[in-house]
Amino acid sequence: MSAEVSEKFLQRLNEIGDRITVALDQLIPPAEGPEAQLMRAMRHGALGQGKRLRPFIAIEVGRMFGAQEKALLRAAAAVECVHAYSLIHDDLPCMDDDDFRRGQPTVHRAFDEATAVLAGDALLSLAFEIMASPETHRDAIMRCRLVERLAIASGARGMVGGQMIDMAPAPGDKEPLQVLTRMQKLKTGALISCAGEVGALLGGALESERHAIAGYTNDLGLAFQIVDDLLDVEGEEAELGKAVAKDEAAGKVNFVSILGVDGARDRVRYLAAQAKQHLASFGVRATTLLQTVDFVLNRRH
Amino acid sequence: MSAEVSEKFLQRLNEIGDRITVALDQLIPPAEGPEAQLMRAMRHGALGQGKRLRPFIAIEVGRMFGAQEKALLRAAAAVECVHAYSLIHDDLPCMDDDDFRRGQPTVHRAFDEATAVLAGDALLSLAFEIMASPETHRDAIMRCRLVERLAIASGARGMVGGQMIDMAPAPGDKEPLQVLTRMQKLKTGALISCAGEVGALLGGALESERHAIAGYTNDLGLAFQIVDDLLDVEGEEAELGKAVAKDEAAGKVNFVSILGVDGARDRVRYLAAQAKQHLASFGVRATTLLQTVDFVLNRRH
Repeated sequence: MSAEVSEKFLQRLNEIGDRITVALDQLIPPAEGPEAQLMRAMRHGALGQGKRLRPFIAIEVGRMFGAQEKALLRAAAAVECVHAYSLIHDDLPCMDDDDFRRGQPTVHRAFDEATAVLAGDALLSLAFEIMASPETHRDAIMRCRLVERLAIASGARGMVGGQMIDMAPAPGDKEPLQVLTRMQKLKTGALISCAGEVGALLGGALESERHAIAGYTNDLGLAFQIVDDLLDVEGEEAELGKAVAKDEAAGKVNFVSILGVDGARDRVRYLAAQAKQHLASFGVRATTLLQTVDFVLNRRH
Repeated sequence: MSAEVSEKFLQRLNEIGDRITVALDQLIPPAEGPEAQLMRAMRHGALGQGKRLRPFIAIEVGRMFGAQEKALLRAAAAVECVHAYSLIHDDLPCMDDDDFRRGQPTVHRAFDEATAVLAGDALLSLAFEIMASPETHRDAIMRCRLVERLAIASGARGMVGGQMIDMAPAPGDKEPLQVLTRMQKLKTGALISCAGEVGALLGGALESERHAIAGYTNDLGLAFQIVDDLLDVEGEEAELGKAVAKDEAAGKVNFVSILGVDGARDRVRYLAAQAKQHLASFGVRATTLLQTVDFVLNRRH
């Protein structure tokens, strides 16, 4: 659908992914005492084979603006804690009822439902503990800003609000594309945008630069979701590591059911071009972020 | 079991409870858009007839040290958001499976399970959003400290860890009282202690004073829980607004099953005296906090 992704980019993505996994392993409390199962479940949910796209965006945006690596790594790990918690709760039987995630049993299948609810809860609190810690950044005003952005992106006016819309019966609305776009903007987009903002804040980006990054992550997040819907229709279960055509089976509308396969592909191409356009003023400094757009377009899972 | 609680104390408790309800009503986003059910569920879970004991402790400790009222109210409301979220998740079918709470249907009964999980999640994020906001306190170092304390008290090494122990099968342990005490210290104690700490931090209390408050809230929290267990055995369903003798029915150990009714009452009296002792150095300034101990001992629900 777009330019091939370079080996070098994939190396960079994997390297950051590994560093995030190591950081999370250190940040999640050890499995000790009568509550040890909780920490084991947190690890199961957070240390798996994720793409680590959100922390990658946070770190690469931050690097472009010259942010300090240690601060970036911890803040990016906090964003990933929120992502991991949201997957654990979304997979619950009362939500999407998924048995597998990235080819592994979901947390409520590997443990039980109560443990999955609690592991998600604990990862959410951990995210804010990391952000607020003086170890993340010496400036408390910065840390408070990060906490606030992450809380808003995660909460009722962000990710959780989006998941609520997703759980509601398909709207008999005259504007299903509008409702769907709003849902995805909240459910997936809010945290991806937050990742970009975290990097920009830590890098001391100017207002206009933060605006450009927000435009980039907005388009990237929506493109990401439409590709997800295309994979839901086209993907092979083995490669995806989860059940396919779930939306259709659940009678849910998605971008492919509304726009058709060709229309959805067109939309992705348009969003990708627009996402790259937002980065024009950064020149070659934005190379990795530009390649991230191609990566999102070409992903098979 | 102890001195009667004065009319004046109850007025003060109710007045703070009402102010917290008003504050939460303003802090929870309005029920708008296709995600409106989420906000309605958050309100159902947070605006009910709670005792508001945690925010009361935060505010009264803060007042004793001369903290600013607006900061106290917002920080206390954040603590109550965490308490409300924990009740919503604890009531879920996969946890304690409770249909009623304070005489009202629990959130998953009034709405559905998915909505209850999400409403709890959103209240947790909201708590950190409130704490980190410049509107809560002008000093960002203070706000970060509050976020960190609340995150630790809520997470795997606090409340959620306690709930995990509570969900585990009764330990065939040689030290059931030790495990039970640890469970309660985390599950109920951590957030009650956090409330006291929030007030002490906002009031600029000295290290030694914070230590005294921590001793007080530790003993008060444990006494609170043992009274809960006594009410579980002795209480009447109508007065309690929830099912009684649940622990026995669920085959769970509690303080009464281990210590017996008389032993549990002795323990409560001992803890109450000790809690008051921690406040000795504050003299008459601690009057309300002393009365809070009597209130906890005399409560019928």
